[in-house]
Amino acid sequence: MVRTIIPIIFAILSLNSFAQNEVKEDAVTLKKIYDTSLLDGKSYAWLDYLSNQIGGRLSGSVNAQLAVEWGERELKKLDLDKVWLQPVMVPKWTRGVTEFAYIETEPGITTNVPICALGGSVPTPIGGIKAPIVEVKGLEELKKLGTTQIEGKIVFFNRPMQADLIETFRAYGGCVDQRYSGAAEAAKFGAVGVIVRSMNLRLDDFPHTGAMSYGDLKDIDKIPAAAISTNGADLLSSMLTLNPNIKFHINMNCRTWKDVQSYNVIGEITGSEFPNEYMIVGGHLDSWDLGDGSHDDGAGIVQSMEVLRLFKEIGYQPKRSIRVVLFMNEENGLRGGKKYAKVAKDKGENHVFALESDAGGFTPRGFSFDCDDANFTQVQSWKPLFEPYLIHSFTQGGSGADIGPLKKEGIVLAGLRPDSQRYFDYHHAKNDTFDAVNKRELELGAATMTSLMYLFDKYGIK
Amino acid sequence: MVRTIIPIIFAILSLNSFAQNEVKEDAVTLKKIYDTSLLDGKSYAWLDYLSNQIGGRLSGSVNAQLAVEWGERELKKLDLDKVWLQPVMVPKWTRGVTEFAYIETEPGITTNVPICALGGSVPTPIGGIKAPIVEVKGLEELKKLGTTQIEGKIVFFNRPMQADLIETFRAYGGCVDQRYSGAAEAAKFGAVGVIVRSMNLRLDDFPHTGAMSYGDLKDIDKIPAAAISTNGADLLSSMLTLNPNIKFHINMNCRTWKDVQSYNVIGEITGSEFPNEYMIVGGHLDSWDLGDGSHDDGAGIVQSMEVLRLFKEIGYQPKRSIRVVLFMNEENGLRGGKKYAKVAKDKGENHVFALESDAGGFTPRGFSFDCDDANFTQVQSWKPLFEPYLIHSFTQGGSGADIGPLKKEGIVLAGLRPDSQRYFDYHHAKNDTFDAVNKRELELGAATMTSLMYLFDKYGIK
Repeated sequence: MVRTIIPIIFAILSLNSFAQNEVKEDAVTLKKIYDTSLLDGKSYAWLDYLSNQIGGRLSGSVNAQLAVEWGERELKKLDLDKVWLQPVMVPKWTRGVTEFAYIETEPGITTNVPICALGGSVPTPIGGIKAPIVEVKGLEELKKLGTTQIEGKIVFFNRPMQADLIETFRAYGGCVDQRYSGAAEAAKFGAVGVIVRSMNLRLDDFPHTGAMSYGDLKDIDKIPAAAISTNGADLLSSMLTLNPNIKFHINMNCRTWKDVQSYNVIGEITGSEFPNEYMIVGGHLDSWDLGDGSHDDGAGIVQSMEVLRLFKEIGYQPKRSIRVVLFMNEENGLRGGKKYAKVAKDKGENHVFALESDAGGFTPRGFSFDCDDANFTQVQSWKPLFEPYLIHSFTQGGSGADIGPLKKEGIVLAGLRPDSQRYFDYHHAKNDTFDAVNKRELELGAATMTSLMYLFDKYGIK
Repeated sequence: MVRTIIPIIFAILSLNSFAQNEVKEDAVTLKKIYDTSLLDGKSYAWLDYLSNQIGGRLSGSVNAQLAVEWGERELKKLDLDKVWLQPVMVPKWTRGVTEFAYIETEPGITTNVPICALGGSVPTPIGGIKAPIVEVKGLEELKKLGTTQIEGKIVFFNRPMQADLIETFRAYGGCVDQRYSGAAEAAKFGAVGVIVRSMNLRLDDFPHTGAMSYGDLKDIDKIPAAAISTNGADLLSSMLTLNPNIKFHINMNCRTWKDVQSYNVIGEITGSEFPNEYMIVGGHLDSWDLGDGSHDDGAGIVQSMEVLRLFKEIGYQPKRSIRVVLFMNEENGLRGGKKYAKVAKDKGENHVFALESDAGGFTPRGFSFDCDDANFTQVQSWKPLFEPYLIHSFTQGGSGADIGPLKKEGIVLAGLRPDSQRYFDYHHAKNDTFDAVNKRELELGAATMTSLMYLFDKYGIK
């Protein structure tokens, strides 16, 4: 009995001491990562350039191409093992001359309200459209009103984001159907245009654009769609209550062009032990055109680049091949994410882990994981390592749009989850600019991502 | 055997079911508190008034008196059981004409740098002072240089806040001795003035003021002390490296006056079961004069007022007497906090719990508790109730300056701990203004404080 027990006890003891040393080593590495990001980080300077020297970079635009060239140039400076461009055809939509709208209470008496075309919208006819307006709280109410009450009118979708949801992305999820499908649905009942309350929890004067789809509508049936600022929506709603016969005028000359050649930008540190296991980290390089896309998703881009730079800086050689992917066209097509996944599949590349940052450059709070229970259990065992950095939130759920197409058995997908309270103040609007990003918050996010990549590289996927 | 076991099992089962019901009731109450704060809160509108209609409110100023009157007026609208003013004499210091400073590289060649007098500083003589400048990294280095290298010079304290500390208050704690004691120490070696690098982690052009002390120096030995912006400090340091013989000119006409009558503003909901057990919540009503004191500490004031309003709104009658205290003079004297504690002691009022919010109106992350282990264990048992609101951080440590004087055996002191990354971007500077506060973040803080007050009221102190 004793003979069998003693070796086991020794094995356990030595395992524990081995495990303790590992934890100590991990704690030291995480500290190095955070220190380097905060004291000698590159993410903020990169974001300054991307936001202020390039600016808004909608797919297919000159700025998007400049961003591709910048990304390649900067990655090449990092002494990675490979840097390349992955070609992808992307949609091109342009806003044209700044759109405008007004409420007409009686002929000649007008009140301007801030609007912006939704991405992908058709233009109004030259000279704009003017029509009576009908307010609904969503697609259900639209259907109830039906053709008799919709035909010939502009439909005003005005269901606000729910302020009592703590996670603002849930509030977004509960409203965004109005923006995405509102025009397609309203057109079926003969509407001539659509105005959607901006996806913004704050009352202000910024209209927020974003993607929309006409579904399978024929070109001739498509109607123009715009977002109105939250203050504008409240004003319009009050004026409609006072006088249901007011008219609304919209003028937009946006346009969809032929697809354009663009690129995902990719950099790789080849793994020392398992070069054929790929772990990727990324964000999307394209942005909407109104602001300079600092939070969405300049932050995610520079944080992802910083992951590989920090590995180099602290002298960590990953066992697995680590790639940073600057995805093109998340906002209005997801072509970059789909292309990357297709090429990976065609080449039989074994992707084991993917991490995306696409929720703003705010104080990181944790990660959301799309993975099986075994891997989630492993992640939870790392929680104590993150506590000194005030990273507490490890949940199972979604990850990120660009890495979604990689989903398959045995891969772990993860999304950085920063504090979400301010995100929709800026999202897709003119005020998503560099000054709205705090340097420390951005750098903490980069360090948090690097730490997770390090742990997955070191311990692998279950 | 069976006879004794069965009742025990029943007792345990019923206890569990009782406990489960309590937890369920608590979860429902917390949800009501958060919903009301986010959907129908008053804190943001109050802060708008305090910041934009009153503004900066340094102790002894007309604005401080306006803030007292406003606080009393607003509390009286809340249908509390009592509202009163507690008289307290406060120091009065005024900045006077805007101060200025420049670096003189040679006679006539000057570069302006942004400075502001530290609170409590003596003025320069009329026309200002001009002297050679010597840079030190702190009080230790000052002592090493000694009289031979300090006499007749302006001492430039330039140790920056440590960016690699995750909690920015720790970085502040590691630097603020330069601001608080720099002048008193430098004067002992014959310095003629002191310039301190602003307590700010960001590089920008805002000088940050704050309290200082001359210790037991005689009036005649006191030297003027000012803060310089972080950009200004870096510039000055570079110029000193290039040419150690540059001179520095400061002009300030600040002044200390006789003490002035002021007030703590107090409102109370009298307890239904234990009216002689007092639980207080508060912040400080005074602020520095440069900005409008929105984060420091307008946020804490309106959140504290909101605690009592939310209790009323959700129909919760506390068992214990709950007071909101708007403390006067935290920034440069702590007279309000000391007075409140003295009166409480003189009257033999049994204070069992005190909560302060004085760390900015940012996303709440948790609380720090100054209490014994039994009470901390109780607090930790409430953690699951706070998880849906992303409140994770419950630590033992400090609480708040104003409630500190209440410390005694058997009281629990607590401080709200919001996200601290941006706090020192604004702290004591001109940009601490209403627009820097996010409505949701402020409201989440108010709800988090109310929830903790509710739990301590319901379950009492151990």
